[in-house]
Amino acid sequence: MDRLAADRFTDMVVNATSSKADPRTRQLIESGIRHLHAFILETGLTLDELVSICGLLVQAGKISSDARNEFLLSANILGLEVLVDMISPNGGPQTAILGPMYQPAAPRLPLGGSIIQGDADGQVTYMEGYVRDASGHPIADATLDVWQAGTDGLYDIQDPAQSGTNLRGLFTTDANGHYAFKCLRPTAYPIPDDGIGGVLLQALHRHPMRPAHLHLIVGAEGKRSIISQLYDRDCPYIDNDSIFAVKDTLVLTFEPATGRADAELYVRYDWTLQDA
Amino acid sequence: MDRLAADRFTDMVVNATSSKADPRTRQLIESGIRHLHAFILETGLTLDELVSICGLLVQAGKISSDARNEFLLSANILGLEVLVDMISPNGGPQTAILGPMYQPAAPRLPLGGSIIQGDADGQVTYMEGYVRDASGHPIADATLDVWQAGTDGLYDIQDPAQSGTNLRGLFTTDANGHYAFKCLRPTAYPIPDDGIGGVLLQALHRHPMRPAHLHLIVGAEGKRSIISQLYDRDCPYIDNDSIFAVKDTLVLTFEPATGRADAELYVRYDWTLQDA
Repeated sequence: MDRLAADRFTDMVVNATSSKADPRTRQLIESGIRHLHAFILETGLTLDELVSICGLLVQAGKISSDARNEFLLSANILGLEVLVDMISPNGGPQTAILGPMYQPAAPRLPLGGSIIQGDADGQVTYMEGYVRDASGHPIADATLDVWQAGTDGLYDIQDPAQSGTNLRGLFTTDANGHYAFKCLRPTAYPIPDDGIGGVLLQALHRHPMRPAHLHLIVGAEGKRSIISQLYDRDCPYIDNDSIFAVKDTLVLTFEPATGRADAELYVRYDWTLQDA
Repeated sequence: MDRLAADRFTDMVVNATSSKADPRTRQLIESGIRHLHAFILETGLTLDELVSICGLLVQAGKISSDARNEFLLSANILGLEVLVDMISPNGGPQTAILGPMYQPAAPRLPLGGSIIQGDADGQVTYMEGYVRDASGHPIADATLDVWQAGTDGLYDIQDPAQSGTNLRGLFTTDANGHYAFKCLRPTAYPIPDDGIGGVLLQALHRHPMRPAHLHLIVGAEGKRSIISQLYDRDCPYIDNDSIFAVKDTLVLTFEPATGRADAELYVRYDWTLQDA
């Protein structure tokens, strides 16, 4: 095969895009075409392999639903969303990926309230901390949107046994920037592995487990929101996340909640919000 | 963003693949991960863009069916299948891409027979030629599997108005390596543009037209099969194929079929099959 001819062909495909196309679209497509073509040249991809890949993608589409985007899941398995977070101007030591389980439907709860609906079948954890600006001043009326999976590893939207907004809550800081709520000690769980995400993990001989974590979005007027996840240092998967999302700065120690009647464990974390 | 940290992250994702994984799978995934990560770094892809791309892929899955693989169609729009053909050890001046409309169901027809079922609503073309080996010796019992779209631009499997095997036929060369059949002069047509292939073409300000062509697979025992397409030199899209599949060596002149009562046009093409 003539490498020069292949390069000329790639240029031809890139140049077929009209100059009338939106500049950002052109940039994304040109980079996408060049990398896809380089992938084909580098691997000597065969027609059978191309057709197999396209067949897997069809299956990923079929298994996707409002509550499940198998492409985003597969992107996570390949570290794509984490990399996007790493290079984001909004990214920083306190940010993590959103994941597919966020719902803008968390019930508003009072400070110190619990996101656990019904009986807790895990260890109740009291979490608190402060939200501050870059100069260290407390931010009042900052919001914390919190969500986590149940002890069965499923989120409410995946699990008919849970109520619609179980383990979700929206909290607002007081005048001192203080927040507090009760949640479950998070549980490690496998990402859904009955679709092409699972095919991929199996082909790579990788496990599907995510370390125990709690999701949060912390925001305030005039500040950049922080999308984050907090992790339990004692989880056996803490160094071995199937989607590579753990940052050292987000790993917490869950301590005994001494002197509290309403919680077994205690954890604290403070947030710093940058100006928008 | 720390470029070194991003590179370390890419290595970490690559190295998560177990050494127990199949070597070819490892090679494809490593190359795939590196190019996807490079694409993200190069373009500064945002979370919103990643989520939008994953949303488009879900839509592509939803519109796909047994008769339509929207991912292969989109791959074609980006030149991927043509590039795979260019680098294939089976590729050569007479090969072209298979496309998504092949069906292993063409009826066996006698030499000189017609693939047109029912009334022809286009220009009947008599096509003939020889199948030879690399030394120029005729190959008897070589097969030609032929398929083409109707004058409405649709293949039988896309078109309830056509019978199940309309415009498909399987022919066998005689002792002299000679083949002949009747077909329609092919018609230019748009590739399906009501899915993400269409979204892509519109975003790039590109047209969806394919130049008029006829599909063939030519094979013989002990020889490498040729997957091909033959093109009509007079088609206005001959230099402007929406999927970049035209090769000069596959462009034919359709001439008046002088002296024939059963056809308006005449075209000839000879095939050379290499040893398998």
